Amino acid sequence: MSNILSVEQAAAKLLAAQDVLILMHRHPDGDAVGSAFAMRRGLEKLGKRVRVACSDPVPEKYGYITEHFAPDADFEPAFVLAVDLAARSLFGGLAEWAERVDLCIDHHGSNEQYARDLLLDADAASCCDVIAKVLDAMGADIDEVTANCLYTGLATDTGCFRYSNTTAESHLLAARLMGLGAQTEKLNIILFETVSRQRLQLEQLALAGMEYAAGGRIAMITISKEMLLAAGCTDEDVEGITPIPRKVAGVEAGVTVREIGEDHYKVSLRTKTVDASKICAAFGGGGHARAAGFSCTGKQFDIKVALIALLEKEL
Amino acid sequence: MSNILSVEQAAAKLLAAQDVLILMHRHPDGDAVGSAFAMRRGLEKLGKRVRVACSDPVPEKYGYITEHFAPDADFEPAFVLAVDLAARSLFGGLAEWAERVDLCIDHHGSNEQYARDLLLDADAASCCDVIAKVLDAMGADIDEVTANCLYTGLATDTGCFRYSNTTAESHLLAARLMGLGAQTEKLNIILFETVSRQRLQLEQLALAGMEYAAGGRIAMITISKEMLLAAGCTDEDVEGITPIPRKVAGVEAGVTVREIGEDHYKVSLRTKTVDASKICAAFGGGGHARAAGFSCTGKQFDIKVALIALLEKEL
Repeated sequence: MSNILSVEQAAAKLLAAQDVLILMHRHPDGDAVGSAFAMRRGLEKLGKRVRVACSDPVPEKYGYITEHFAPDADFEPAFVLAVDLAARSLFGGLAEWAERVDLCIDHHGSNEQYARDLLLDADAASCCDVIAKVLDAMGADIDEVTANCLYTGLATDTGCFRYSNTTAESHLLAARLMGLGAQTEKLNIILFETVSRQRLQLEQLALAGMEYAAGGRIAMITISKEMLLAAGCTDEDVEGITPIPRKVAGVEAGVTVREIGEDHYKVSLRTKTVDASKICAAFGGGGHARAAGFSCTGKQFDIKVALIALLEKEL
Repeated sequence: MSNILSVEQAAAKLLAAQDVLILMHRHPDGDAVGSAFAMRRGLEKLGKRVRVACSDPVPEKYGYITEHFAPDADFEPAFVLAVDLAARSLFGGLAEWAERVDLCIDHHGSNEQYARDLLLDADAASCCDVIAKVLDAMGADIDEVTANCLYTGLATDTGCFRYSNTTAESHLLAARLMGLGAQTEKLNIILFETVSRQRLQLEQLALAGMEYAAGGRIAMITISKEMLLAAGCTDEDVEGITPIPRKVAGVEAGVTVREIGEDHYKVSLRTKTVDASKICAAFGGGGHARAAGFSCTGKQFDIKVALIALLEKEL
């Protein structure tokens, strides 16, 4: 178990730290990238050496963030910070670092407390919300680059202020970041109004196989390795597909089953009212109240039947 | 030409008014409905008789607003207020009222100034932004119902804080409305996170036939009568499809060709930088700079070839 820190305590630890390594979860999303680089910027402005590491490369669309940072310096870290990184399994290829994390800053209620110290705000819509508070507590300047980083996490994790995790505080932070120079018009086009040709083709294939259960209250999309190959898609593209099944009128739970390997699947669950995190926990996964997931092995059909059975009980 | 009023002057006019008729534009959208009913609520709380009129019925999805209002009282209006209503042509079946409007509250720079008095804020993202200011100036209480009305206009006109008209002020108003009890979670699902099963099926069929031209700078969707029939879709559903081709990365012009009858087509053009209105004018149509259309007869293939040829010249 971690020591639970306040925002001020976490800020004090970072102010005292040198040569900081910031870790992101594998398949980094907007909140992971935004959190890591906002913190890197803040710490660098305070004169510290910082580098960011991740099991997977940063998706190209976040180039408007990474272009402002020099190539990673080569140094032996004296302090390891993990951001938006809730579970050991999410370290991916950097698993050896999981037991060496000095501080974790996160907003997932399911955080595994693998770090020595933990700053956790499970009510925050994004990890970037928490990072903004720590930067303020550190007295770090928030410039346009940092504002773009923080807006990226805030906007992507709230589905551009659309999801249920959006709070009045989310809007206040957005207003503040716009005042600080966040290029929200440009970022919204990149983040929400642009899809790759590949992603659209994957969407078409996924929609063609949409299945319904529980009298239309469950909608399910299956993405096979073949489909990914046929569409020429990456993991990033799949991220954009998972919100679709929940959108269907009458649907309470939207499921995306993705084939990872032979009899190996990754399942994403999005709900309207039911606790997605609780249901996914039953399969060894976790996440948020309306968006959670799990990985599992077995026959696709059996996994679907088990998930539908549990969902029907909860709906 | 109208007398141009300040927020305070408009509020004073409304405070002095009795038996108020509030008019919305035909095919009322979220901002029209939100503005009209927020103002009705505010005026009723101040003890006035109010009714709302429109050439077309309020779309069902806004039932969470209208359910809070009694059937319209039958009275002869002593004061006529138009909200979010920029042009005489938008009165539809209520055209006879256009010359009898005492006050118009609007946010369209193109307002025709048909009303005696006009409160216009062309920088406001939504008319509801302006209505909120007038309610405050009137000292009208903003309760949960009013907050839901105002959020509806603010969120729909900004594409849920995604479009370029979104300002820091938009986010500040959203934060305030959440504090006043706006049910943003429920509203966002209704307004942005719900598509019919039919519409999704049509999307799938349309995506399956997506064509590209001009080295990927033109994307084209074709919707046949058969596809509409197979998906069980209405005209409204097609409207939701037309923005898709332009979203594709690298695409400058998105085209939707819809079969109306034998050798009879309706073409929608959405562009990123090119003047869509000018191109559609060459085919006898028209519209806005980034969204225009035309109807035509002929063979589908010939129409596409002619349009692509003209587009390639302009791109």
